[in-house]
Amino acid sequence: MLTMQTKTSKNLVPMESYSQQRMKQFFSPRHIAVIGASAKNLWFMNLLENARCAGFNGAIYPVNPNAAEVWGVRTCRTIEDLPENTVDLAVIILKSTLVLNTVRSLAAKGIRNIVLISSGFAETGEEGARMQFLLRQYCRDHDILLMGPNCLGFMNPAAGVNVFTGGAVEGDLVSGTIGVVAQSGATSEMMVTKLLKESLGISLFVTTGNEAILSLEDYLEHLVSDGTTRIITCFVEGFRNIPGLKRVAIKAARQKIPIILIKVGRSALAVKAASSHTGALAGNDGVMDGFFSQYGIIRVDSIEELVETACIFSRLRMPGGSGLGICTLSGGLCGLYADLCARCGISLPPLGERTIHRLEEILPGFARPDNPLDVTGSGFQGGMEAITEILLDDEHIDILAPLCLSPKNEEDVFIHALNDSFMSRYHSSSKPLVPITFKEMNDYARGYFREKGIYFIEQPHLGFRALSHFMRYAEFSRSFGQQHR
Amino acid sequence: MLTMQTKTSKNLVPMESYSQQRMKQFFSPRHIAVIGASAKNLWFMNLLENARCAGFNGAIYPVNPNAAEVWGVRTCRTIEDLPENTVDLAVIILKSTLVLNTVRSLAAKGIRNIVLISSGFAETGEEGARMQFLLRQYCRDHDILLMGPNCLGFMNPAAGVNVFTGGAVEGDLVSGTIGVVAQSGATSEMMVTKLLKESLGISLFVTTGNEAILSLEDYLEHLVSDGTTRIITCFVEGFRNIPGLKRVAIKAARQKIPIILIKVGRSALAVKAASSHTGALAGNDGVMDGFFSQYGIIRVDSIEELVETACIFSRLRMPGGSGLGICTLSGGLCGLYADLCARCGISLPPLGERTIHRLEEILPGFARPDNPLDVTGSGFQGGMEAITEILLDDEHIDILAPLCLSPKNEEDVFIHALNDSFMSRYHSSSKPLVPITFKEMNDYARGYFREKGIYFIEQPHLGFRALSHFMRYAEFSRSFGQQHR
Repeated sequence: MLTMQTKTSKNLVPMESYSQQRMKQFFSPRHIAVIGASAKNLWFMNLLENARCAGFNGAIYPVNPNAAEVWGVRTCRTIEDLPENTVDLAVIILKSTLVLNTVRSLAAKGIRNIVLISSGFAETGEEGARMQFLLRQYCRDHDILLMGPNCLGFMNPAAGVNVFTGGAVEGDLVSGTIGVVAQSGATSEMMVTKLLKESLGISLFVTTGNEAILSLEDYLEHLVSDGTTRIITCFVEGFRNIPGLKRVAIKAARQKIPIILIKVGRSALAVKAASSHTGALAGNDGVMDGFFSQYGIIRVDSIEELVETACIFSRLRMPGGSGLGICTLSGGLCGLYADLCARCGISLPPLGERTIHRLEEILPGFARPDNPLDVTGSGFQGGMEAITEILLDDEHIDILAPLCLSPKNEEDVFIHALNDSFMSRYHSSSKPLVPITFKEMNDYARGYFREKGIYFIEQPHLGFRALSHFMRYAEFSRSFGQQHR
Repeated sequence: MLTMQTKTSKNLVPMESYSQQRMKQFFSPRHIAVIGASAKNLWFMNLLENARCAGFNGAIYPVNPNAAEVWGVRTCRTIEDLPENTVDLAVIILKSTLVLNTVRSLAAKGIRNIVLISSGFAETGEEGARMQFLLRQYCRDHDILLMGPNCLGFMNPAAGVNVFTGGAVEGDLVSGTIGVVAQSGATSEMMVTKLLKESLGISLFVTTGNEAILSLEDYLEHLVSDGTTRIITCFVEGFRNIPGLKRVAIKAARQKIPIILIKVGRSALAVKAASSHTGALAGNDGVMDGFFSQYGIIRVDSIEELVETACIFSRLRMPGGSGLGICTLSGGLCGLYADLCARCGISLPPLGERTIHRLEEILPGFARPDNPLDVTGSGFQGGMEAITEILLDDEHIDILAPLCLSPKNEEDVFIHALNDSFMSRYHSSSKPLVPITFKEMNDYARGYFREKGIYFIEQPHLGFRALSHFMRYAEFSRSFGQQHR
């Protein structure tokens, strides 16, 4: 009987969402208690280190009856010993069997915001599912917001809060406009690391775990309403609240906030992995794809593609139409790019007659103006500025991807001079410009473009995929706008 | 009438190929003349610099009637002024209209090996095609081997010869076992640069140009017979000699030399680009795919995928079967990897009963042994050695891809110690092992694996594609071996 309820309870989520105010409080605690902080594992140590990096200036109270201090911080013996009316978020790192009583004690102390790191719940089988069911009942009856169980916590860099117990995020945590919600801890650490490496800033980073109370859809709802997030990225094993997801997707579309997600479960093995991981229902994959495309949700296949797509949305303004123009200096690259674009459904419109005529005037006689355009080596040496202008003037071209050289270092005077002459076009042009870099890039070269806020394509197979998501979303957004005027 | 002949002449290639001896001589000149060497463009300068880097110890004779020296090298005024019986290869960098007479003068001087850099032939239209036709007739009548026109030359690092006029190959040219043949100069420069960056060595690198005499198929035939090349990589716009290609493919299969190629022309636009580039016929794409799979030729979609695939063939021995085992420390990654594998047709067989039993004994109670295997965080901390052994013992697993940490620098003592303990397995194991790196890699980390000759997966969407080509080729090779015993 209980088993039945446990199983169906996965879908018994509230249709309404939590108030914006309540969610905001949850993610902005002033002082934190960590129940079960211990030197026996790395969670509390990671949390301390992460909080330090984020500049958290509240107090952190480890609670542990068996140690006077943990990782150098003095402990409280029990929850009752915590100072009154001070702590507004508790992190629990305890054996699953101890959790429910701990939550009761916290509620008695007036602490109703909880991050539950512990695993050993629904993801482990029937007994764990039973414990999760009871925990859920208790939280709902006592108005407790709970993240997890079986999660790593969250980072809220804008508020200087970092309640994250994982240790694998690398790079400087910068506050920004990208929200990250993930049903897998380790995977999300890779996502955030790669976003930071791209110099992209994070608005909020949440690991959902088993979602006993707060669900993926609740976090998404918060992100589309927080006033900061402009791009949402997700790692999803399964949705628990499809009506909630629909509501969020519509809100996001209204505000032109793209939702970029990895949804595992294309294969039977991935569905199996998801169920043993967070107990999520992966659902029918084809149905999901239809849903995503109806609501403008962007599905990607890898972390690299997700990050690349987040880059393009962060750095490029929306095009007015769906025609891409490419110009490069090699006929071979023209063919390669045309094939890659065809593979991901990017349209390369033929050039207008006037464009062809104007190009013929400035390109060498043997060059044949076309899209993709091979400007030829000597055409390139003649300068790309005029060619770029002519292509941008073509009414069928809405985004232009010209070949671009990247400097190796400060002393690369020739390349710097070459680029400086039309670098300003990247920002002033009425149509978005995407340089495709030629020759190998190093970290200096990548930084050179990133600092200027310019999206560039280094790996064409990845860049064109991202570009196709971007152009398709712009199209969705235009038609959504017309339907919802 | 002439136009007709010009068009059909594309397919009028000899069925027999050139003798191995003759081809070897072509690629190993002792002394070189460069007709039309000039300071007005960069070709001769590039050639000098490339020859210097390759340690070419022959003489280089620029021929130019209007300059006493070019880029610091004394010129001969005319071809007649060249020393007798010395030069065995001539490079021509002249206007297309001057080429035929120059070839006649070279033949009169006894020079029958020619690299023709000049463009302005079949790729430019009817008049160019006519000139190419006449040139071709002359060369065939006078037993002249000619590379090009409209090419960049070649590099033969093993022989210390570099007759390459492009300036965009970066990195140290190392002699090795990878052959590169390309119908596009700039594209091939990117290919070679990326191969060198992966610390892979080159046996011979050829740019074919318009293939007036020597064709792509001739170069391939040479590579499969040269005794050095173990892997062939190509960039192809169109084949001109399908019977020759078939013959090469069979020879390559016999010797287990994989042919990895980009063949543009999936899209109509790419076909158009190819025709204006080197005048190649791109052919029916579906028919090409059938042909490739019948002959074990590996078709890839991007330069990155080509290089990644060359890496795996260079560094991993062939598996005995087609089952891949994956183990990682995150349920999310299990799902992600399972989906990526499903996408590229990699089979992840279920674990044997004995394997499951043995894993249950050493993994934490909540871990569920499966493929992909989530060893869980604590399972990982318990050490991957025993887990790896158990998975390698499973009869359904033929290749194993375990999670692996990579050191950031020499001082990364913990990771070095962790890896040292089972690094030897990569070489001693009877089944191939492919580490999937976790966390971001830097150049030190990449060098760490490359120096040990270990193929590793850094970008799963690319690595699994390469792995799928590798496993499919191994399967092809096994069945080909059985049919051709």
